[in-house]
Amino acid sequence: MNPESTKGKLIGVGTGPGDPELMTLKAVRAINEADVLAFFCKKGSSGNGRTIVDAHIRPGTIELPLVYPVTVETHKDEADYKTPINDFFDRSAEEVAAYLNAGKTVAVLSEGDPLFYGSYMHLHVRLKDRYEVDVIAGVTAMSGCWSMTGLPLVQGDDILSVLPGTLSEEKLIERLADTDGAVIMKVGRNLPKIRRALAAVGKLSGALYVERGTMANGASERLETRDESPAPYFSLVLVPGWTNRPGPDHGAAE
Amino acid sequence: MNPESTKGKLIGVGTGPGDPELMTLKAVRAINEADVLAFFCKKGSSGNGRTIVDAHIRPGTIELPLVYPVTVETHKDEADYKTPINDFFDRSAEEVAAYLNAGKTVAVLSEGDPLFYGSYMHLHVRLKDRYEVDVIAGVTAMSGCWSMTGLPLVQGDDILSVLPGTLSEEKLIERLADTDGAVIMKVGRNLPKIRRALAAVGKLSGALYVERGTMANGASERLETRDESPAPYFSLVLVPGWTNRPGPDHGAAE
Repeated sequence: MNPESTKGKLIGVGTGPGDPELMTLKAVRAINEADVLAFFCKKGSSGNGRTIVDAHIRPGTIELPLVYPVTVETHKDEADYKTPINDFFDRSAEEVAAYLNAGKTVAVLSEGDPLFYGSYMHLHVRLKDRYEVDVIAGVTAMSGCWSMTGLPLVQGDDILSVLPGTLSEEKLIERLADTDGAVIMKVGRNLPKIRRALAAVGKLSGALYVERGTMANGASERLETRDESPAPYFSLVLVPGWTNRPGPDHGAAE
Repeated sequence: MNPESTKGKLIGVGTGPGDPELMTLKAVRAINEADVLAFFCKKGSSGNGRTIVDAHIRPGTIELPLVYPVTVETHKDEADYKTPINDFFDRSAEEVAAYLNAGKTVAVLSEGDPLFYGSYMHLHVRLKDRYEVDVIAGVTAMSGCWSMTGLPLVQGDDILSVLPGTLSEEKLIERLADTDGAVIMKVGRNLPKIRRALAAVGKLSGALYVERGTMANGASERLETRDESPAPYFSLVLVPGWTNRPGPDHGAAE
């Protein structure tokens, strides 16, 4: 971090899990005060982050959509994906830098929390040594999901594991057997595999499936009885810890 | 959940990691609208949660401090601790229930996020089947800490492990070797052990020590060079994942 008074400030702003009321006071202020509002989105959509903050944008704010060149969900490990996506993040960082060089404050929206699996991180690592940077923590998607369902997740000396659903079934079984609470992200087409792994370690009955947590169209159900259709991108599976807690209904959905 | 219109509503309110500006809009509204504000605290202190929300309490709000009978940090696994603490949570739940039965809305403050290691959980499991309950997600202490230090924590298909510093050195080594990012809670007197475990798996140089993250007196430094004195209760260690990220300074503090 090497601030120069003539340069603008970069702010990574966590917008929370979806419900606009789950934005922080600090995020609202940063969005309202920003000269430029940058956000990642897919072609033809302004993205969830932009939707969440809509009510707080000052008239006259410059908007800078950073449009993904390819679909993020596919081909992540292939070279023909990695090169264009890295070029895209390089280009995006320079677009933001141009405004910073002109003395503008740039707020970059990040759904959930900026430094927790957020796309903002790609700009952060490229710009943080050249500009003054502030990161505003946000409520994560996983917090939004377990709060929406009222599921106590971890307590006391519990271990929590946050796992990608892309792990092999064998790896998932190993990880799920050896943790208290768990959150499984990137459910999508991995749902049947995740369900088999949880059944194998005896933790399926308490697990909840949540999609679009805290958004207007959010929903949750027991993973055990959810159908086999692919889950949307914004979905996750919650496995409660705190196994010695009081009450007879450990892990049951409301 | 079995709401009856004559009964009041229980609301678990996440107050965030310490900075009052990291409260959500929804938390502010819930606190402002509550008839009764309940919060856990130690004898002689109103507790951090109460301090964080101070500016948003409506005049005339009833305050219900729930004062811990013993020190929480010690003797957790001993029977002479467990019985009094369970009795205390039973009694606290009944104090809250008395207000709910009188038709009052009771907001229970929870630092960080209510269902993520929060004391609120002890009331939640005791009351959720008898009253209408709402849980308002909050920014966790760990999010506050990595945002304050600007440390990118996990990205892409990374695994994150949240571990208690109370684990044995052998278990810590095993867990830390086999994860991408990690957050170690309950640092306290476990700091030298945590440092040895991180050194054993080659992850000490990137690790940050953070105390009172986002609070006015918050501070962070590289764990490698922190002195050996016991860490305060509100401290944690961050181990960054995303090992293939761009840039030469992986894991360095700002």
